[in-house]
Amino acid sequence: MNMPSHVRIVEVGPRDGLQNERNPIEVSQKIRLVDDLSAAGLEHIEVGSFVSPKWVPQMAGSAEVFAGIGRKPGITYAALTPNRRGFEAAMAAGVTEVAVFAAASESFSQRNINCSIAESLSRFVPIMDAARLHGVRVRGYVSCALGCPYEGMIDPEQVMVVARDLYTMGCYEISLGDTIGVGTASATRTLIEVVGGKVPREHLAGHFHDTYGQALANIYASLQEGIAVFDCSIAGLGGCPYATGASGNVATEDVVYLLNGLGIETGVDLEQVAYAGRAISQVLGRTSGSKVSAALSARG
Amino acid sequence: MNMPSHVRIVEVGPRDGLQNERNPIEVSQKIRLVDDLSAAGLEHIEVGSFVSPKWVPQMAGSAEVFAGIGRKPGITYAALTPNRRGFEAAMAAGVTEVAVFAAASESFSQRNINCSIAESLSRFVPIMDAARLHGVRVRGYVSCALGCPYEGMIDPEQVMVVARDLYTMGCYEISLGDTIGVGTASATRTLIEVVGGKVPREHLAGHFHDTYGQALANIYASLQEGIAVFDCSIAGLGGCPYATGASGNVATEDVVYLLNGLGIETGVDLEQVAYAGRAISQVLGRTSGSKVSAALSARG
Repeated sequence: MNMPSHVRIVEVGPRDGLQNERNPIEVSQKIRLVDDLSAAGLEHIEVGSFVSPKWVPQMAGSAEVFAGIGRKPGITYAALTPNRRGFEAAMAAGVTEVAVFAAASESFSQRNINCSIAESLSRFVPIMDAARLHGVRVRGYVSCALGCPYEGMIDPEQVMVVARDLYTMGCYEISLGDTIGVGTASATRTLIEVVGGKVPREHLAGHFHDTYGQALANIYASLQEGIAVFDCSIAGLGGCPYATGASGNVATEDVVYLLNGLGIETGVDLEQVAYAGRAISQVLGRTSGSKVSAALSARG
Repeated sequence: MNMPSHVRIVEVGPRDGLQNERNPIEVSQKIRLVDDLSAAGLEHIEVGSFVSPKWVPQMAGSAEVFAGIGRKPGITYAALTPNRRGFEAAMAAGVTEVAVFAAASESFSQRNINCSIAESLSRFVPIMDAARLHGVRVRGYVSCALGCPYEGMIDPEQVMVVARDLYTMGCYEISLGDTIGVGTASATRTLIEVVGGKVPREHLAGHFHDTYGQALANIYASLQEGIAVFDCSIAGLGGCPYATGASGNVATEDVVYLLNGLGIETGVDLEQVAYAGRAISQVLGRTSGSKVSAALSARG
């Protein structure tokens, strides 16, 4: 087993987590969250999304959030930019890395972003061109990589095609997302083997939701396949928009605990990240989705 | 990787789970739980414990539970018997398999069962003798196998000595318990390698608590080490007596989901076991600790 010695955690809580919240969250609270995450040692934070507020009202204040955070050297502060207009808005807000979002499932693409997979990819071309001009890196997400709420199982070959296209287009990293958290460890390994045949593994990341409790086992399986980048969400923020009441993103705290135990370096301080998780959970008035956080609090 | 093709799940919910409940649970509810678990296809159920009600009041009705359950052929209905008196009571109740319980941590042994590890083992000798006479199999638990609430880290060699002694004494299977759920996948593999040097792996079982969310990753790591028996608790019943508010035993539903995904046969029907979990959670008036159960319910 060649497990990586360092893992980069991409903290998606402020974006992928908060975007699912119904009640509006104040810009100042979002800024505090991002600053807490910076202080905890996270090296990559997805801060917000430049998307029509008609679609995702919670992300309306992303430019203000970018303006308010204290940017630390060495930390990537990224934003999701679904189209050219979003990209321009992100540039105006001083964003230095963006992400685009495609699906491996045709039905999910149609229902989630109102276009076919091919159309979504073609929309990214002008973003890629503009990003090149601005010297901005682009990260690509592929959702439904291990299953789709409408189509069920997704063929890994289908995921590979979308991942390869995003990579060829210029995305420096492709994050494979188990959007509904249905995948288990064997399927995860097969996916990485298939996609890894076309996109070098050092350019792949894992994005696991914990809906069925499988996320940490899938991350452990991914590490065994040489994956060294994982998307996580502080306090497990996010829920599952396709199954109300179910768990969402894997909690950053729990992933850091696993990686600490495996002797894999992340640069993240567990106590500080747990603090950030408790603070935002308090703002949202809810129990943290992190078991590590619950255990640390119970231990006192 | 030589993962097993079949896994035996030892369902410990009615004993290890319910023993931590403060409010008394009616015998009829316990019987219903065991019958539901039998119907779901579990082949090994720890039904109760024959211990002084002064110590564990919740287990006072174990003889009545054994008298009331519908025993299905091929299913093992076991009981925990900490001493000779408990063993005799179990025999009187028609129990056909018993379990004994030792710790790998001296402090835990003293505080939990009021004697040293060596004393606890010597108390098991008459149970082993009597069990041999009755033709009853004895299973051995080793707690604190990956950490102790009082001593912190536990040397795998120390766990090995206790496991080896129980095995030599006649226990047909040794369940290695991460009682406080602190272990991660690497420590789990090291533990199995060390203990497996003295006790053949086909006589070892894993008992993981999910306090820090690591249980499924640890089970996946154990499968890779050839372990094919895991203790689980329906709906994650159990909590953590050493950290109020933290998660306890790994949920049977979540383990079955993982094993189904890995193509490993268990004989357990996921829908039926989820039904059993919802029923007992309702009796206890609490949310199930199983993420799979939450996801299935949310999906409707």
